[in-house]
Formats: sequence, C-alpha cells, structure tokens
Amino acid sequence: MSTHSIPADRYAARLARAQEALPQEDAYALLIGVGAHLQWLTGYGAHEIPRITLLVLPAGGRATLVVPRLELAAAQNCSAAQAGLIDLSPWEETDDPFALIAAELEASDSRPEIQIGALGGAWGRLGGLLVSDRLWAVHLLRLQAALPDAAFGLASTVLSPMRAIKDADEIELLRTAAHAADRVVEQIAAGRLIGRSEADVSTEVRDRLVAEGHDEPAFAIVASGPNAASPHHEPSDRVIEAGEPIVLDIGGRLEGYYSDTTRTLWVTGEEGARPSDEFTKLYEVLESAQAAQRAAVRSGLAAAALDAVGRQMIAQAGYGENFIHRTGHGTGLDGHEDPYIVSSNPAPLATGNVFSIEPGIYLEGRYGARIEDLVVCGADGVDELNVSSRSLYVVRG
Amino acid sequence: MSTHSIPADRYAARLARAQEALPQEDAYALLIGVGAHLQWLTGYGAHEIPRITLLVLPAGGRATLVVPRLELAAAQNCSAAQAGLIDLSPWEETDDPFALIAAELEASDSRPEIQIGALGGAWGRLGGLLVSDRLWAVHLLRLQAALPDAAFGLASTVLSPMRAIKDADEIELLRTAAHAADRVVEQIAAGRLIGRSEADVSTEVRDRLVAEGHDEPAFAIVASGPNAASPHHEPSDRVIEAGEPIVLDIGGRLEGYYSDTTRTLWVTGEEGARPSDEFTKLYEVLESAQAAQRAAVRSGLAAAALDAVGRQMIAQAGYGENFIHRTGHGTGLDGHEDPYIVSSNPAPLATGNVFSIEPGIYLEGRYGARIEDLVVCGADGVDELNVSSRSLYVVRG
Repeated sequence: MSTHSIPADRYAARLARAQEALPQEDAYALLIGVGAHLQWLTGYGAHEIPRITLLVLPAGGRATLVVPRLELAAAQNCSAAQAGLIDLSPWEETDDPFALIAAELEASDSRPEIQIGALGGAWGRLGGLLVSDRLWAVHLLRLQAALPDAAFGLASTVLSPMRAIKDADEIELLRTAAHAADRVVEQIAAGRLIGRSEADVSTEVRDRLVAEGHDEPAFAIVASGPNAASPHHEPSDRVIEAGEPIVLDIGGRLEGYYSDTTRTLWVTGEEGARPSDEFTKLYEVLESAQAAQRAAVRSGLAAAALDAVGRQMIAQAGYGENFIHRTGHGTGLDGHEDPYIVSSNPAPLATGNVFSIEPGIYLEGRYGARIEDLVVCGADGVDELNVSSRSLYVVRG
Repeated sequence: MSTHSIPADRYAARLARAQEALPQEDAYALLIGVGAHLQWLTGYGAHEIPRITLLVLPAGGRATLVVPRLELAAAQNCSAAQAGLIDLSPWEETDDPFALIAAELEASDSRPEIQIGALGGAWGRLGGLLVSDRLWAVHLLRLQAALPDAAFGLASTVLSPMRAIKDADEIELLRTAAHAADRVVEQIAAGRLIGRSEADVSTEVRDRLVAEGHDEPAFAIVASGPNAASPHHEPSDRVIEAGEPIVLDIGGRLEGYYSDTTRTLWVTGEEGARPSDEFTKLYEVLESAQAAQRAAVRSGLAAAALDAVGRQMIAQAGYGENFIHRTGHGTGLDGHEDPYIVSSNPAPLATGNVFSIEPGIYLEGRYGARIEDLVVCGADGVDELNVSSRSLYVVRG
C-alpha cells in the first residue's frame, strides 16, 4: 500500500469548488453516481452495482449521498463522510431510490442559498441537472422520467476541467503507481516468455502489478506476433514464439489512480532470432517520434499540435496509415480522461495535466509496436512519470 | 480454459428473436453498447472504453456494429462477425460516431422490411430506440441530442426476459464456473488465514479463481470480524485474528459467465477459540433458512414468495432486522440480472432461470454471516450449481 493519500480537507475544497461552478453552467445540482467523479469529490471508491448510489450536490447547501442500505457501512468510511462533509441517506431494498433523490432535490430547493421557488420552475430558471458521465442509461432514463421538466447535462462540464489539473498529492500517487508498473515491465522482460500463452503472461503481469504496490490490476495486454498489430488485443491462448515482438500495455490502480505504460519486447529465443531490418527501422521511427513528443510537452501547446509532432514524423517515414489511433489520453481516477491528445482537440495543455504519449505503428496481420509513457505537463516542461527504458527490449524470452 | 462454448448459430437465433420482438414493443431498433447484452447477441465480450462501440440492430435488415477503428481487429473476431451475421462499421479518431449511428438508422429506414418513410416520422410511429441498460450517460445524451424526435427506452425490455432463460450450454458454463469457485472456497478454508490482511487473502482468492479455470476474477470479498457485518465490504488492511468469522463472497468469469458463491468461515487459531453460542445459533438459523429456500425453488413460484420463505424463518428467530438485503439476483453474462429474488418482485420463476440464494444475518459492529448458492430453476425443481458444504467452516486458520 502507498504511503501517500489525499487529505480530508481536500474534499471540502473540491465540493465547494464544484458548487461554486454550478451557477455559471446554469446548473441546479450535480447528480453523481459511482465512479471517478464521486471518488474525486468524496473519496468514495465503490464499484458499480445495479443498485443506484448517487451524490446529490445542490448549488447551495449540503451534499447528500443516496446509498443502498447494504452499502451504508462502506459509504460511511469514505473521507468526506468521515469528515462530516456530506450526509448519507440510505434506501431499503423495497424503496424507490429515485423518489428519494427527487425529495433531496426538493429539500435543497427550499434552502436560502437557492431562491428558486417551486421545484418545477427550478430547471427552467437555473438550467438543469448535471449527471456523471458514466451513469448507466437505466438510471438516467429513470431520472428523466421522475424529473420530466429538468434539462440534463454532463457533470464533466464542471468537473473535468478541475480533475484535469492534478495537485501535488495526486501527482505523487500517479508517480508511485507508474514506477510500480515500470518494475513489472522489467520483471516480465527478464523472465521466460517463449512457450507460454499470452493469457498466462497476462496473469503474471496482474499479480506483479499488485505485488509491486498497486491496490488492484486494471489491464494487462500481452499482444504477441501478429496480435501486436491490434492495439487493444485481449490476451489469448496464442503461444509466444521466438523471433517475434510482444506489446505489453499494462496498468493498475493505486488509491484510485491509474498507471498505464506500454513497452515493446522482441524475443529471440536460444537461436537468437533477432528483429528484421524492417522491424528495427519501424521501431526506430516510433522511438524517435515518441521521444520528440515527450520533449515537446509544454503548457500552452495545443493537444492537437502535440499529436501532430509524432504523427508527422511517422508519416514522413511512410507509416502514416499505420498509426491508427490518437497520441494519448489524460489519466487520473479514470484510465481515460481529459485531456485527450488527438488532432481534433485544439485545447492548450495546462500545468498539472497528466496524460499518456503512446504512438504506435501497426502492420495488420504481421506485427506492430507501441511505446507509452505517462507525463505531467509541468511549469518548466515535461515531468516524466515512467522511468523504464523506451528502447526495444531484445530479450531471450 | 473451458471446453464449453456457445455455438455460432445460437447468435443468429438470438439476433432474429430480438428483431422479431421489437415491433411488439413499438421499437424501431436496438442500440447496444459494450456489455452483457452485446455479448449475448454477438459473442463480442469487449471491455468498456470511452470510445463508443454500438450495435445498431433495426427491426428489419442486418445489424451493424459501429466500432472504433482500433477495436476493429478484436470485433472481427467475435462469433457473430466470424459467422457473417453482422456488418462492421469502423470509425476513425476524428470521426463523429454519432453521425455514423444516425446514418445507419437512416439506411435501415429505407429497407423494405420497415415501411416508415422519413426518419423523423419513424420514432413517432414505431415508438423508439431501445438502448442497452448500462450505456453511459455521456453516450445516451449524445444520442438524444442527435435524434431529438426519438423516444428512448431500455433494451432490457426485450432482451432481459430472453437472457433470463438460460440454454443448456449456458448452464454448463455456469456450472463449470461454480465448481471452480467451490474449489477456491475449499482451498482458502484449508489454508493459513490468521495474521494475514483481508486484502492479502483477497489477492489469493483472485489468483485461485483463475488457476481453477476462470478467465478472470470478478470480485473477492474477504470480510473478517466486525467487517463481516457489512455485506459489500471491500477487502482492507485489517489483519485476521483467531476467534472471529470471515465471510468469503467470491466470483469470476468464464467465457463471460459469472460464478458467485459465499461461504462463512470461523477461525479458531491454535487456542481453539470456537464460535460463541450466539454465533452458532445465528448460523444455524441462517443455514436452515437458506436450505429451505433452495428446496422451495420451482417453476411458477413468485420471486417474492421465495424471498419470503427465508425471511420469515429468519424473522421468527428474532433476526428480521438483521437480514438487510434481498435474497438474491439472477446471474449470467451480468453478475446481477433478472430475475431478482426480492419482496417487490411478484414475477414467477421460470425453468432455465439461474439466480443466487444468499440470505445473511448482520449484527452491526460485531459480526455477520451469509450463505450463497447459484441455482437453476429446473423443470423438476432446483438444480444446484454449487457443491461445496454450506455448514460453517470451523477451521484453525
């Protein structure tokens, strides 16, 4: 377990900032289900189950966490509840939780901070309700039916810009997780690989992610030979052979925060089946492009421009059609969050952003390679969270 | 890995049944994101990522899977795609996938099977679009914005009744997974427990779930001492001591299908700290109630009546207030799905239903116990998927 953690008073500040931002967005309340938004606001890191858990955070007054009765004990242990920052409202198995949520909104309605009169008119004047982005449709459709006059929007409008700027505690958690993932890469590269299935190696990765300090593994892509040409390949029964590449894309969670790193290996076997000239050239192009992108990180640079730095280099080498995804994505309490490093995102990078830089080159049906680091956009340029080598790991396997 | 699997022609039959059911529901199309509905219809068991994957299944004509370009290779490997039952429509990083989805709906509109004229009028006449229940709000709100005249409902209206009746292949997958989880319970009960943290034991459970044949672990609740009073306790750093109970609630996935079993242990330590008379009585009440519920399972019995069988016995023994959740939930490609065994559900059980029977008694702040089996509602009564002992496991630990 980590020695870092987020202090309780941070949750008070986050709840207050979220409330203060609601009027500017013409929003009346945030309705936040289980997930990263909830964890960021309260420290409550529950897993999603069909029974709805929802934080009702009105623009004024106290927040209430509507929670299934049997989750109450767990919810009471979260930082915001322990610090007395939120109220808990449990619902029983035979209750209608949506009626409870509507009642919470009505109660907040009468608070002096929000002078909006009858509930029905509130939406019209203050705009609406912002739901967490990953709230399930089954819950959202129930909320829409229970509150037919409300306009619904996304909580990320308010919360994502806040969450995209990591504070020093968050960055240290992300760094600790990144270093743990780096150690796993080194361990896998040093171990036996040939003759084992991708699924078997993937299980070893998951165990090592926890052994090295993560609270839980999140993903462990092991894509060998032709499977390396599929960026999101699921580990299969395919047995790793000598003379082929392996793309390892691995990550876990530490106090909610994700690690996420990719390294490419080449296994030679005893006969020393080294990479072909073509693969060596491909990898050199990729390594140069990824290094150039890391070096280019600075506050104020457009995300699209950072994407272009690597994409142009790869295209000039003739692999433009083979880099089939964006350069990267933000990482924090969600594995993928703002900012997205993609050609369609003109927004400037900001100090405190943490994101991946992960160009790849894929020759369908043959092989592929990817290199991924998490980086912080620091005040003075890039702060690299991963420290393992980005060179091709040519190993006996 | 399992030797069972779902044959490809099963997906053709499921897609056809789903289409045939749409007109009765006044629905024009199913819009199915990543998750259990998609896996049931196509065999595609992808994990959810922010980039939308959506199966567009109109009431007539062929289904199209709109999929991010970088997931295309994985999607092409699913059973329905391999068998040529669905078309694939990849979207690039800079495309708007919602425009692509709207175009698919427009194209299906002109097919002779659906004589509905202009797109705008379709929703009014045929009713609407049924989205998968766990589609994220961020996607549903985009769909609602892109198709403002559509009425949105839940795909479970059509699919859940079908999915709740398992076929013989599904039952054998569930049985194989259940037996694997049973072996893990026995292994944990036979091992060392005292002096270890709940989190450490939980990691061992996860590894053993895979070692015994699951494709991946899903959950591994290890709730010791006072934590046993919290039904959904998250494994913590708490160190297990002699003279206390441990509730083990564990499950994994095998070809998408879940195992889910709970057994309660009591660790005595070297000094032989056996359960108190009070705990022994509590457990006997629970064991009798759970056995009575298993024995009561039959086609046609209301789910609420099955809940009442155990609840009444527990209440009569004075623990009515301490059984704080429903009796159980269906299990299949979702960990929790129809039928729910709860007092508010009057629907009759049907042959082929698979669900949990998991009463519990919880004394807050002190301890608790739960016993959970998965059972099939068979034509001739109950078919029990779990085979491990339901008695209290009094072990040295």
